[in-house]
Amino acid sequence: MNLDKLQTYLQNNNLDAAYISNPITIAYFTGYEMEPHERIFALLAFKDADPFVFAPALNVEEAKASDWSGDVFGYLDHEDPWAIIADLASQRSAELNRWAIEKEHLSVSRLQALQTALPNASFAHDLSPFIADLRMIKTPAEIKHLQAAGAECDFAFKVAFETLKQGMTERAIASQIDYQLQVQHGTMQTSFETIVQAGKNAANPHLGPTMTQIKPNELVLFDLGFMKEGYASDSSRTVAFGQPSAKEREIYEVNREAQQAAVDAAKPGMTASELDAVARDIITKAGYGEYFIHRLGHGIGKVVHEAPAIMQGNDLVLQPGMCFSIEPGIYIPGVAGVRIEDCGVVTENGFEVFTHTSKDLKIIPAD
Amino acid sequence: MNLDKLQTYLQNNNLDAAYISNPITIAYFTGYEMEPHERIFALLAFKDADPFVFAPALNVEEAKASDWSGDVFGYLDHEDPWAIIADLASQRSAELNRWAIEKEHLSVSRLQALQTALPNASFAHDLSPFIADLRMIKTPAEIKHLQAAGAECDFAFKVAFETLKQGMTERAIASQIDYQLQVQHGTMQTSFETIVQAGKNAANPHLGPTMTQIKPNELVLFDLGFMKEGYASDSSRTVAFGQPSAKEREIYEVNREAQQAAVDAAKPGMTASELDAVARDIITKAGYGEYFIHRLGHGIGKVVHEAPAIMQGNDLVLQPGMCFSIEPGIYIPGVAGVRIEDCGVVTENGFEVFTHTSKDLKIIPAD
Repeated sequence: MNLDKLQTYLQNNNLDAAYISNPITIAYFTGYEMEPHERIFALLAFKDADPFVFAPALNVEEAKASDWSGDVFGYLDHEDPWAIIADLASQRSAELNRWAIEKEHLSVSRLQALQTALPNASFAHDLSPFIADLRMIKTPAEIKHLQAAGAECDFAFKVAFETLKQGMTERAIASQIDYQLQVQHGTMQTSFETIVQAGKNAANPHLGPTMTQIKPNELVLFDLGFMKEGYASDSSRTVAFGQPSAKEREIYEVNREAQQAAVDAAKPGMTASELDAVARDIITKAGYGEYFIHRLGHGIGKVVHEAPAIMQGNDLVLQPGMCFSIEPGIYIPGVAGVRIEDCGVVTENGFEVFTHTSKDLKIIPAD
Repeated sequence: MNLDKLQTYLQNNNLDAAYISNPITIAYFTGYEMEPHERIFALLAFKDADPFVFAPALNVEEAKASDWSGDVFGYLDHEDPWAIIADLASQRSAELNRWAIEKEHLSVSRLQALQTALPNASFAHDLSPFIADLRMIKTPAEIKHLQAAGAECDFAFKVAFETLKQGMTERAIASQIDYQLQVQHGTMQTSFETIVQAGKNAANPHLGPTMTQIKPNELVLFDLGFMKEGYASDSSRTVAFGQPSAKEREIYEVNREAQQAAVDAAKPGMTASELDAVARDIITKAGYGEYFIHRLGHGIGKVVHEAPAIMQGNDLVLQPGMCFSIEPGIYIPGVAGVRIEDCGVVTENGFEVFTHTSKDLKIIPAD
């Protein structure tokens, strides 16, 4: 169905063929998901012929056994994949002048190799925006996968809150979360490295879990997500281990208010920039604007960061089916960090979150 | 030291500046390792000025606290990173006409954005080959990290062989391996998803662990690797769970002979292609050439696949300090797969492996 849309796009834009290089896009169109590392993996689509998958020889059997029912062609490591691709494409279609490529994914050297193999073709057309737009509006089936992935976060928070103990390292807690998801739920793949940050470590939003030991009376931030049926989840909660200081309570409550206000405000017709402002204004008015150093949110789907970006300057109008995170944060260097994050979907008249763990400040006794 | 080499390269090639976009290359030159996802992260180097790191605002503190002692500049999500980069570079150096880029990493759209921000500059020079060559010859310090990473594989095989039990899924065994590495050794990051493949699943070389349960009397293939100090390891062993068939024994012994012959033959002065042929000829003469569907090996270092590729057609001459895998495999669709893999370093007169787990066919009792 999505491949039909791609073919229609090629026809409408007077394009002869598309060279799709992003493995996630290939999975989106074909149902066959694979990480080719440095090898060549592509989906070729044509305005007037059937698409095919091109893969390393060692993945061909797997591709044929996958959900993809079209042709699969392979190449051996010592062969020139570009010559084979040019040859296969020429057999497929007589006219191969105007190509579309994924400019946001294809490397400069691979474009040069394609150009060398197909010297008369033009690769000027960028397919990335069309694909991002197509992927941005989720189908009901995709939303179901995203909800199921979100439920894993709720389970993971339960594990996290039970695991948190004085003297444990951030790293050990993160490992325990991942392991319990694996053995209890068979959830094998995280969307990104599970983040556990205690005290001032949480002031660096993307710092991975360290060997820092948990001490009483500090905030602990969890940011985690898991893959289900090829879809990602992503959620953050910040809890107090022992007694929070007045300052920590304050930044928690400001951030919580900002996050909830944005969740409540999100609906079709407003822009991404306007939604960012709902949360940002609350944090700014409370005097912490300089410590909210990232956008409000990011789209989520087959990958954990995709369109739409919910940020200042993005005038994209929200529509039903768009899925993204709402995750304001306040990061005070050397002191503490707070982030609260839910992903959800824009509905006909609002926003429905995929994660339901309470956002009341949870105080976990330190003794 | 490596950054001095880069600056000398720029001077020798009449280049004004380099835009380095691959996070691994940035880590190699700066000691600061970070995954920027879709955000912009770069190292800018100049023929006549000090280099600087450009990173998302939310990573700036972390970068400054890292081993990197040079400047770090950041940008906020709603700002135009390309305009800021152009501005910063212009402040650094008056002459910015000829740039080098990593064509194997930089995407077509990011090159276009750079070109728009620096309309008079040329980005024709590809830095990727220079960097691959530089990284290909490891220093003694790097070799020490690779040996330490290799030792984790040996530990992991011990865990794997003890864990293997009838009825366990491939997935559960892989999870147990990762978890034990984490809790017993603090080894947190795998080089790639730990692979456990039983019976005919092993005929698909890159199939991740499935929910297939281990049954008696089949071969089980393990392929695993771990990161230590920013360096990767990668090793495979295939064992028999219960009694192997005569055919399974035969392909195991052919593959083992081929692997050991290549390990024994590797030395400076021979080409990558010649080394591939040492193993391939043995497998071909035994009648299994068509089932050895990949190259003999890949380079290893900061990532699990890098230069040099040990394969037919690669006339690169092996030199001391080159590190790569030797991993012939025989994959018979619907039947079984065997792979044996060690990574190692080319020495003055031979090849020294990083993994030492026995390659005698190990038979693990099925009851």
